[in-house]
Amino acid sequence: MVKIKIICHGGAWSIPDEAKEKSLEGIRNAARAGIEVLKNSGKSEDAVVAAVSAMENDPIFNAGHGASLTRDGTVELDSMVMRGRDYSIGAVAALRNVKNACQVAREVLDSEHTLIVGPGASEFAKEKGFEIVDDSELVTPYEKAALEKIRNYGTGVESIFKAGDAHDTVGAVAFDGDGFACCTSTGGVTFKRPGRVGDSPLAGSGGYADGGAACSTTGHGEGITKALLAHRVVWGCGADQTRASKAVDDALDFMKTEIGSQGGAICLTRASYGVGFNTKRMPWCYISFDTETEEEEILVGIEPESLQQRDIPEITVIHH
Amino acid sequence: MVKIKIICHGGAWSIPDEAKEKSLEGIRNAARAGIEVLKNSGKSEDAVVAAVSAMENDPIFNAGHGASLTRDGTVELDSMVMRGRDYSIGAVAALRNVKNACQVAREVLDSEHTLIVGPGASEFAKEKGFEIVDDSELVTPYEKAALEKIRNYGTGVESIFKAGDAHDTVGAVAFDGDGFACCTSTGGVTFKRPGRVGDSPLAGSGGYADGGAACSTTGHGEGITKALLAHRVVWGCGADQTRASKAVDDALDFMKTEIGSQGGAICLTRASYGVGFNTKRMPWCYISFDTETEEEEILVGIEPESLQQRDIPEITVIHH
Repeated sequence: MVKIKIICHGGAWSIPDEAKEKSLEGIRNAARAGIEVLKNSGKSEDAVVAAVSAMENDPIFNAGHGASLTRDGTVELDSMVMRGRDYSIGAVAALRNVKNACQVAREVLDSEHTLIVGPGASEFAKEKGFEIVDDSELVTPYEKAALEKIRNYGTGVESIFKAGDAHDTVGAVAFDGDGFACCTSTGGVTFKRPGRVGDSPLAGSGGYADGGAACSTTGHGEGITKALLAHRVVWGCGADQTRASKAVDDALDFMKTEIGSQGGAICLTRASYGVGFNTKRMPWCYISFDTETEEEEILVGIEPESLQQRDIPEITVIHH
Repeated sequence: MVKIKIICHGGAWSIPDEAKEKSLEGIRNAARAGIEVLKNSGKSEDAVVAAVSAMENDPIFNAGHGASLTRDGTVELDSMVMRGRDYSIGAVAALRNVKNACQVAREVLDSEHTLIVGPGASEFAKEKGFEIVDDSELVTPYEKAALEKIRNYGTGVESIFKAGDAHDTVGAVAFDGDGFACCTSTGGVTFKRPGRVGDSPLAGSGGYADGGAACSTTGHGEGITKALLAHRVVWGCGADQTRASKAVDDALDFMKTEIGSQGGAICLTRASYGVGFNTKRMPWCYISFDTETEEEEILVGIEPESLQQRDIPEITVIHH
């Protein structure tokens, strides 16, 4: 039996009721895009990019089309892909004028670099043949309104962070039967200063992958960076490959207690999957597929109650 | 007894014979600048910035004045400061036109952000009152020649990395009797593409600090980022606070074996200090000062043989 699997998240924050259905639809579509890559013998690192691209293109999520705006009204994207087999990393930060930051990050993974930022990242994308687009192609009315609201109420970045409800990041983790990969992508927080980078493009913070596990995170970027949340989760999996959810919970608890920050994380090991968040909501979807029996399992959730599903041990899953 | 201490490194690479004496002089000056801050009741995070500023201003080291040049002949600086007490981070990457990147990073630490990159970082520095300088004030004949050599021989970035002798990074770690801090700063590698960021400004890679230890790293930036070298060292110290050098060695061994990259690291815990490198040379200097007896200890080295000094347990150090 070879079980290939993917898990996706659509950001841990105070998602409003009216966005619930579209978020669930979007997260299912993303996981579906990723598992199809794996079913066609695609590698983990390409499956996560397919899943994250789907979310970047879906304006319900804050990445790519629908990304939060900087205080200048511009769009600056951050993304990272990491392949656990050889610890390869590709990442971009403060990338402008490209639709899918995760696809540029995927190109960096194949280069001799790990992280390219600012105008140099746009230059790299151009060299690799990516279409250069105007901000207007990435901006949604929702994000324009969000920026105006912050400006008018004068609350500033700090209060947004403190409210713990920043419109956030998307991510995916995949296992292709051989190795792991993770991908994370974000437009950051509304009203951020140009050049501000959170956790998403940073290995160990926004994501991490090694030979036995991979993780993607979401939440308060600065807090995640301080806690090195993704490395902490992957490290925790080393201790017990069967309880990825425990590794996620322990790392989130550490971040809340020690740093005072909230967020969420998803994780895969060979023997288990983990998903957790301590914000109001986080859309997530897990799909596994047995390449011999062709049985597929799908789990999806957005409310804290959905996390109870995690406790079904994989060995007794009900196949759909 | 309260023992305050600082340890500095001036980069792990194939330092040529003719640069040895000046490197040793520079590393002593840096450690001296840092310990003076601690003696005057300064905090760890200010002591490491004083030490690193001294190295940034010394053209024998590759940071600030004397930084490696990009393929465009420009100077782009990366630096990070981290305070272990509260996990605060301040970092800048691809910063242009400022003399001391570590001092800008120190300002970011006091802001609501952790990392600011590219033109946004220069803008932040300007807002904070830093002098904006022309590249010509930071460029040395040595670095101009290094860039021309690479261009003429057409070896490119990859061969530089493979030779394992990239002109590298500086860093410092301090303990003020209460908490830890680390600081790392670099101009990156010669002929880097604009926007390329290595490990130095990334928490967990170029440095990390928590309540019990701190670490600064140097070497192949991409390899250090994949290994999350600094987080690995600090994590290793948690297991045995008396053997910081073992934590350093284990992490460097992991990076060499798993990633195929070389480098060096320095580290402090309450009970020990660690220094290690698997490159040809790395200048390092450790100074501790007992605030009651006013006894000071200085250890300094650059050759691999100097690492034997590490094995003197702190409890039996010979005071100078």
